[in-house]
Amino acid sequence: MVNNKLGIEKVGCYLPSARLDTLELGHKLGATDGFVSKKLGFTKLARKPDCEMTSDMCVSAHEDFAEQCHIHPEIGCLAVVTQNPDAGGIPHTSSIVHQKLGLSKRIACFDISLGCTGFVHGASIMIGFMRENGIKNGLLFTADPYSAVVSPSDRDTALLFGDGATCTLISSNPKYTLGRSRYLTDSKHSNAIRTIDNPRRTLSMNGSDVFRFVAKHVPREINDCLYENGLTIDQIDRFLIHQGSKFIVETLAAAIHAEPSKIAFTAETTGNTVSSSIPLMLAKVLQEETAPPTNLLLAGFGVGLSSFVTTLKRSK
Amino acid sequence: MVNNKLGIEKVGCYLPSARLDTLELGHKLGATDGFVSKKLGFTKLARKPDCEMTSDMCVSAHEDFAEQCHIHPEIGCLAVVTQNPDAGGIPHTSSIVHQKLGLSKRIACFDISLGCTGFVHGASIMIGFMRENGIKNGLLFTADPYSAVVSPSDRDTALLFGDGATCTLISSNPKYTLGRSRYLTDSKHSNAIRTIDNPRRTLSMNGSDVFRFVAKHVPREINDCLYENGLTIDQIDRFLIHQGSKFIVETLAAAIHAEPSKIAFTAETTGNTVSSSIPLMLAKVLQEETAPPTNLLLAGFGVGLSSFVTTLKRSK
Repeated sequence: MVNNKLGIEKVGCYLPSARLDTLELGHKLGATDGFVSKKLGFTKLARKPDCEMTSDMCVSAHEDFAEQCHIHPEIGCLAVVTQNPDAGGIPHTSSIVHQKLGLSKRIACFDISLGCTGFVHGASIMIGFMRENGIKNGLLFTADPYSAVVSPSDRDTALLFGDGATCTLISSNPKYTLGRSRYLTDSKHSNAIRTIDNPRRTLSMNGSDVFRFVAKHVPREINDCLYENGLTIDQIDRFLIHQGSKFIVETLAAAIHAEPSKIAFTAETTGNTVSSSIPLMLAKVLQEETAPPTNLLLAGFGVGLSSFVTTLKRSK
Repeated sequence: MVNNKLGIEKVGCYLPSARLDTLELGHKLGATDGFVSKKLGFTKLARKPDCEMTSDMCVSAHEDFAEQCHIHPEIGCLAVVTQNPDAGGIPHTSSIVHQKLGLSKRIACFDISLGCTGFVHGASIMIGFMRENGIKNGLLFTADPYSAVVSPSDRDTALLFGDGATCTLISSNPKYTLGRSRYLTDSKHSNAIRTIDNPRRTLSMNGSDVFRFVAKHVPREINDCLYENGLTIDQIDRFLIHQGSKFIVETLAAAIHAEPSKIAFTAETTGNTVSSSIPLMLAKVLQEETAPPTNLLLAGFGVGLSSFVTTLKRSK
């Protein structure tokens, strides 16, 4: 059987090189520079080429991951977190990634449909599945290119979302292990972030409903998560908060009374990359070799509406 | 913590009342009665009303489940297995089902994108997630209405798929617990079952590729699964084989030398209901009160291409 120490070992990242200038787009949509750069906080949004599929983005994130590996681990399962799968969703994108990476047959592949809670939630799902099936190494991908569903003329969404992907190795040789998680679904507002056919599949968002949900629930979820893990706010070295907007990260930082140096808005030149925003930050933490942080808190929130909060503890 | 006995307690089912006559449709498409009734085996296909969404089908399956409950269990997580989600996939269908059922906030919701392996694979994912998070009761839904993506003039798919949904209670008070599972992904043939835009999202299938995959891999997967669980073929009381077609079930029965009475084709008047085909059979097993079977083997195969095989053991 696998030991209890399944956790996160490595994260590979992919951000397309092209950028959309939100200040310029903001002018067209009647949004002030102050609103774009101070409130939303995104001055640029990462943009994939049109022809690039979700599976291609996963492959690119895997390239970055593979460059970090001296020995390539034998993978037992592969999951893709996305709500924008390749090819209309059949087959699951994970099997297409499996094909593009040329992996062996003895691998379980599945997609997890979640939005901004997808990485944290997905890590818990993967670890459970791996423990259940005695799997030592699994790859958890996040890739949700909202550029494919955002209308460029919609002020509520066009200035927010960037494209990105990550590839996380979950293994029995982890650098960080998950603590107890807290989760919540407020489906009364499930329509606050949704796709509609208009006539093509298009994202629609009620930003006020999302903000109210986050401001109301997430600070308490964070405090309850800390309590359940026997930790105080001061014992957390770094808060990796979903980068929904600069304003939402600042609102949460103030609400939980976290030291500003421990809770950062890092997505200014990428945009809100949905389920990739937290692992993009985690990838940087994993590269810190001198005095890496001991305790992290991860908080995802968004589509559902939902939140999923957990802690990570350095294991070596 | 949750004990080790998480497993399957109850299954609720939903089959729409309307039926499509495949013999009649077969005449139009140039398929003989013999091909339709002896090889495919489906004389009728269950058909949902056009207006019925995947989440509505889940709610109907939940109604059947709820009728079986004296006390309603407190649910901690809810997953929907589907590749045909509501509303273009955002939000996940599980949060819409959560809303329609009026469930409490303290529930983790996620969708799993898998096809015909979805129930068996999904049960393993759910049990792992529940154990990881100390959850005692979870609902696993399957609902994949292929009628929404099948072209009525496509002989390869129009005579095969029926609509149905199931709602399975996974709990710490199970009637059956899962054994060790075997899984496999043959993504070289990931295109064998896929959706294409033509111009609307339409299912396309290469039946020969699927058949070759199943005939080549699944008998060995079944035998290996039995071996890993310390069981012989004779110790299995019932084989619940994905009802891909009559021919495929008969081919597998012959290949594994199972007693014909233990391995049934039961989908003649419903069609291949994708991830619902196995739990629809399991629901009937769970209703057997006199001398219920002790050991079951469940084998799902299809989209990916993939297979997922496990055993179930009666726990009380």
